[in-house]
Amino acid sequence: MELLLVDKIILVSSFLGLVVALFQFTVIQKIKLGPAGGLGQSLNSEDPEKLVPEIYGKIMSGANQFLKVEYAICTTFCLLFSLVIYGLVSWGTKSSMQGYLTAGAFLTGAATSMLCGFLGMMIATYSNARTTLACANHGYTLGFNTAFRGGSVMGYALCSLGVLVLWALLTVFRKVYPDPDDWEILFDCAAGYGLGGSTVAMFGRVGGGIYTKAADVGADLVGKVVAGLDEDDPNNPATIADNVGDNVGDIAGMGADLFGSFAESTCAALVIAAAAVEGSHSTLFEAGWNAMLFPVSISAAGIVICILCGFYATNISPVREEKDIEWVLKLQLVLTAFIMLPVIYLLALHLLPSEFRLEGVRLDEDGTPAKIHGTPFKAFICATMGCVGGMIIGLVTEYFTSHSFIPTRELASACKFGTAVNIIQGLALGYKSCIIPVFVLSSAIFVSFQLCDLYGIALAALGMLATLACGLTIDGFGPISDNAGGIAEMALFNPEVRRRTDALDAAGNTTAAIGKGFAIGSAALVSLALYGAFVVRLRVKTGVNILEPTTFAFLIIGCMIPYWFAALTMKSVGKAAGEMVAEVKRQFSLKDSKGKTLLDGSTELKPDSLTCIQISTAASLKEMVAPACLVILSPLLAGTFFGVQAVFGLLTGSLGSSVQLAISMSNSGGAWDNCKKFIKNGFSDDPELRYTKNPKTQEEKDAAPKAKEAHDAAVQGDTVGDPFKDTSGPALNIVMKLQAIVSLVFAAYFAAINHGHGFMGNIIL
Amino acid sequence: MELLLVDKIILVSSFLGLVVALFQFTVIQKIKLGPAGGLGQSLNSEDPEKLVPEIYGKIMSGANQFLKVEYAICTTFCLLFSLVIYGLVSWGTKSSMQGYLTAGAFLTGAATSMLCGFLGMMIATYSNARTTLACANHGYTLGFNTAFRGGSVMGYALCSLGVLVLWALLTVFRKVYPDPDDWEILFDCAAGYGLGGSTVAMFGRVGGGIYTKAADVGADLVGKVVAGLDEDDPNNPATIADNVGDNVGDIAGMGADLFGSFAESTCAALVIAAAAVEGSHSTLFEAGWNAMLFPVSISAAGIVICILCGFYATNISPVREEKDIEWVLKLQLVLTAFIMLPVIYLLALHLLPSEFRLEGVRLDEDGTPAKIHGTPFKAFICATMGCVGGMIIGLVTEYFTSHSFIPTRELASACKFGTAVNIIQGLALGYKSCIIPVFVLSSAIFVSFQLCDLYGIALAALGMLATLACGLTIDGFGPISDNAGGIAEMALFNPEVRRRTDALDAAGNTTAAIGKGFAIGSAALVSLALYGAFVVRLRVKTGVNILEPTTFAFLIIGCMIPYWFAALTMKSVGKAAGEMVAEVKRQFSLKDSKGKTLLDGSTELKPDSLTCIQISTAASLKEMVAPACLVILSPLLAGTFFGVQAVFGLLTGSLGSSVQLAISMSNSGGAWDNCKKFIKNGFSDDPELRYTKNPKTQEEKDAAPKAKEAHDAAVQGDTVGDPFKDTSGPALNIVMKLQAIVSLVFAAYFAAINHGHGFMGNIIL
Repeated sequence: MELLLVDKIILVSSFLGLVVALFQFTVIQKIKLGPAGGLGQSLNSEDPEKLVPEIYGKIMSGANQFLKVEYAICTTFCLLFSLVIYGLVSWGTKSSMQGYLTAGAFLTGAATSMLCGFLGMMIATYSNARTTLACANHGYTLGFNTAFRGGSVMGYALCSLGVLVLWALLTVFRKVYPDPDDWEILFDCAAGYGLGGSTVAMFGRVGGGIYTKAADVGADLVGKVVAGLDEDDPNNPATIADNVGDNVGDIAGMGADLFGSFAESTCAALVIAAAAVEGSHSTLFEAGWNAMLFPVSISAAGIVICILCGFYATNISPVREEKDIEWVLKLQLVLTAFIMLPVIYLLALHLLPSEFRLEGVRLDEDGTPAKIHGTPFKAFICATMGCVGGMIIGLVTEYFTSHSFIPTRELASACKFGTAVNIIQGLALGYKSCIIPVFVLSSAIFVSFQLCDLYGIALAALGMLATLACGLTIDGFGPISDNAGGIAEMALFNPEVRRRTDALDAAGNTTAAIGKGFAIGSAALVSLALYGAFVVRLRVKTGVNILEPTTFAFLIIGCMIPYWFAALTMKSVGKAAGEMVAEVKRQFSLKDSKGKTLLDGSTELKPDSLTCIQISTAASLKEMVAPACLVILSPLLAGTFFGVQAVFGLLTGSLGSSVQLAISMSNSGGAWDNCKKFIKNGFSDDPELRYTKNPKTQEEKDAAPKAKEAHDAAVQGDTVGDPFKDTSGPALNIVMKLQAIVSLVFAAYFAAINHGHGFMGNIIL
Repeated sequence: MELLLVDKIILVSSFLGLVVALFQFTVIQKIKLGPAGGLGQSLNSEDPEKLVPEIYGKIMSGANQFLKVEYAICTTFCLLFSLVIYGLVSWGTKSSMQGYLTAGAFLTGAATSMLCGFLGMMIATYSNARTTLACANHGYTLGFNTAFRGGSVMGYALCSLGVLVLWALLTVFRKVYPDPDDWEILFDCAAGYGLGGSTVAMFGRVGGGIYTKAADVGADLVGKVVAGLDEDDPNNPATIADNVGDNVGDIAGMGADLFGSFAESTCAALVIAAAAVEGSHSTLFEAGWNAMLFPVSISAAGIVICILCGFYATNISPVREEKDIEWVLKLQLVLTAFIMLPVIYLLALHLLPSEFRLEGVRLDEDGTPAKIHGTPFKAFICATMGCVGGMIIGLVTEYFTSHSFIPTRELASACKFGTAVNIIQGLALGYKSCIIPVFVLSSAIFVSFQLCDLYGIALAALGMLATLACGLTIDGFGPISDNAGGIAEMALFNPEVRRRTDALDAAGNTTAAIGKGFAIGSAALVSLALYGAFVVRLRVKTGVNILEPTTFAFLIIGCMIPYWFAALTMKSVGKAAGEMVAEVKRQFSLKDSKGKTLLDGSTELKPDSLTCIQISTAASLKEMVAPACLVILSPLLAGTFFGVQAVFGLLTGSLGSSVQLAISMSNSGGAWDNCKKFIKNGFSDDPELRYTKNPKTQEEKDAAPKAKEAHDAAVQGDTVGDPFKDTSGPALNIVMKLQAIVSLVFAAYFAAINHGHGFMGNIIL
């Protein structure tokens, strides 16, 4: 087999990514969980050297336990679903080979996503205790680098595996059908890869989201409000589950989500590029393999750039003190994005033909599909719209959720008037935070759509995801630091160590907000691209008339689906948190032989974190099935019974509605979280907003009761925000993507039922 | 001028409505605000005969004061806007006559809406004190009848005026253009009537909503949480403003909203019916005046039926005891709806031709507009879908918000876990409550759209609004009873009187929830009908392709508008409530010459309710401008700069998104309200959810601290729900309708700019 330029780019980049991931891992490995020096020597715990490995072990085994059960469920579901895919696609295309390949691609995508999630979780839990020790023994530089390296192992490995496996899959497909004229079909089959990734992501996001928030909300409710404990107090048995949850939700969930976005946008681009254009031969497909795989090359090149910028952070200009941390992380995001732009241009110039034709889904004045003239420059602009747009959305997200800026500070002031006003203003803040991101998104859509029709949208999505490896690194950095803080607290380290991990965590939170913005923005573009690919795949030549009875009826239903989904997931968190509260209360009420309880400092009783982990695991796995089925079945049922017009309506509505709900929920939640931190950590100039357990100055003493009230209001807001920002909000990304890719994969099946009118098509009015 | 059948129906019905309204008013008048007998004799107040007129006078003057300022602003805005309408429509149609007539219709609609709002407010405030006295002196029957009659005066007068003025307007228009061939244009101009109604409704809903909730939230926060006062405690200076607010928000706002819906759906039906159908002469327009005015006849006939059923409630089968109240009110709603159905069928048979043609906005398989064959039976089915659909939506709304059913009881149980869990579960409840109404709406849309295209949608909307007079009666009944309770409390009546007014209020609340469901459902249908009329008016023959760059970009913006709007209105409530809290705190901190404050029972100080009223008035009027401009300007700017495709996207997105947000906000708010009442009034079997100030049994004493906690959590939820259910939620109805009718009125203007591509059409890519 001859390797073309694009093959070389993909292979070199992804192997480099894997090698560097392995290298970073070996660097982390050098930190031993043995005796602690430096600040570790001033530990005030009874047996510190034993405590760290013990807690680390509990988190590790809790995470393992969850993943094992979750992946067992996922695997079962995926195997069954692959049979459905095989059956329906074979029936729809009248080719069992297509069914076979689609189902195979689906299983490959699902397996890759699970592997990535597993690796991410392992390395994150592996790095957390080591970050604590690095902070204790060596200060900021090594502490930051350890958490950053931990995140980067996941980022590089996930991106490299994603690119490599997709490339391998397509190469195998090429071998199966040696005649290039059949390839068009193969790209349709490859869409199964995206579906696999997204299906696992759905389980990861929802299951992980419910897990983490059941533990977090439960721990908060009992620990902080009822018994007056600190966060991560070692006596609270839900604390370990909370720490496990950070890994489960933010690492496995977020990783799978973004992996899904990458896989799906690539598949959308391939399907659109492979479609024939009436009366023209200068399509991307005819231009050959280099041109077809241009979208994959963007992702591949992104890995290399992220690696280079990553070394800048850890080695060339390392973090030396607290104030460097946020700056270094943000610089990473901006730097990779800006270096990416010229690289995308070079790739477009070398891989794409100087002019190519695309058949549009939009119509010319005469009502026929527009013929689009693409050029490398136009393709570059599309990707740039995504890349720059993503950054703006990220920065706006930060503006609305960080307590360095006005919105969250105003929210903190609202806490003076109590919980209700905090909730009202927090919800309003979330709603308001939709405005700019939506304008940015719609500008990106408008420009890319104008330039290269839906191929442009797919490129914009890939542009936004081009710096995925860097985004994932930072996303991983957050929970690792968060866990490191938890371990420092539970192992009774010197408070200075906790201060250091908190500084890492705070910076991670801010940049994680940026990451969430990216995730939502890219999800919107990806689902539009997939929707377009679905329309292209169906060879619809008359556009999608929204004012059809079926389409409009399903548009409203589509708009409702995200609400239904959010209702299910939020109710699940409430329910699971209730169980957790009951369990913790039970443990707190137990008395030992001397009549002492856990909270009285009993030496006989130990917090039973295992039961709490089991509660979170069982609840999340039970509760994740219904929302996942809602999302997967809704387009399937709509298409089966009411035809493709119903699916068009459903996708349109769901996309439009999910974006808003996802942005507003994530940002309300983020702002409440940081508002609480703002008051709790005493950052305010206003003494009534400066909460402290031991007021010192007279001013602080006078203001203490009011500060306590404001703090309590802020804690309630934070608790409401927990399922908003970590369960329902981010999972809505997957709602829109998954519905669209299900539609794309089953396009031929829908088209085959009653000429695309569905089973009800004949009997309706 | 010869009067046809339809003219006779309209004239007789609307005169009958006005006469009955006047008659009911004279019946209320018979209750004098003089000395009280019966339970009034056991008043424990110092000077009861003076107190009632004094409080009544304060509410009356507060309401007057607000309306005067609001309508001054409205009038100024409408006069200015009518110039814009005149200018842009004249320019767009190249006919200053059309601009003149549209602006005239606009001012007529606005004036009618203001007149109706004013009458409604006057009669409501007139009836409230009389309801208190009727309850005190004569018991349930006269108490119920007084409040019901008060509501019905508004209901009958508003519907009659609406129908009559519209008929007069169209008749004058016919005189202006004696040649029937020009009438098509006239129906376009008549759309200004709907715009006028809706513009005033926007100010009414938003201004009234902010007013009432600033007062309510402010009174709650200080009164209940800070100082531990009862609701409507006479010492709380915000109480009068709260009572004024009920009238301003629920009477003037709701009335204007539903008047707008009626006017707009009629206009939409007229515009669609007047459109020419290519190659066919058997259109509704050619069938003549009877056929054209069929939609108006539904509304007219509805008045008569509501009057008949109303007499059933007050005279034939009057309320005798507490448990009758809810039943009588609900029966009203169901009875009118079911009597309405055969009447609609008869009207259709006699007024519509046996077959008529409509040009569809949906397309046939060949991509040309479908030719619809309408029949009276099909028209009847469309109206029935609306009428029955509205009732189902209403009943589902009741199921989710009444504390007689599981959802709100579950919410009450969640209060045991504190405020945060109450908020999380309440939001989830609201989201979940969208599911069935959306399925009902989309079924109504699907069936009516299939049968009679967008004319069917307009008929479905009119079917849902056919029993408007009855709905308004009940909507008026609620705030009148609520005010009556407030007066009973403030005038220190015997608690039995308060119990009676509370029973009226409770039933009114339940049925008001049904009314809100109707309002949202009809708004969705109306705005779809208007959207369709807009498309018909533009003579678009290729459908609305949602996958155009401009359309899709604006679809997402459209989905965002309701969030933006909700952010503005909720922030306004929070801000205004904060000002109210500060004022009340100031008054509570004042000390008289003996060093006593208001709360210590000072005899010198009086609560200064006037200042509170002024704060609410000023805040609401200042804050209502920005949301109103957002809604009116968004389609204008989109159409001016990006053309009609942008408007299509905007309307589609806004409609889909507003429906969900409106339903979920209204129902979350309603459920929180009733959840609080459930706990506060001790309806629960669970002692931990039975709040009582003076626990009697041992069981109650043991549970008291927990019951107090649950009660506090419920109060916080209720406060969050206040702006949800009375400000942002219901105002979203008007967002979707107003955007659509603005588009319809300015259709010719949009079409005239650069062939409908907008000013940016030439310079974009």
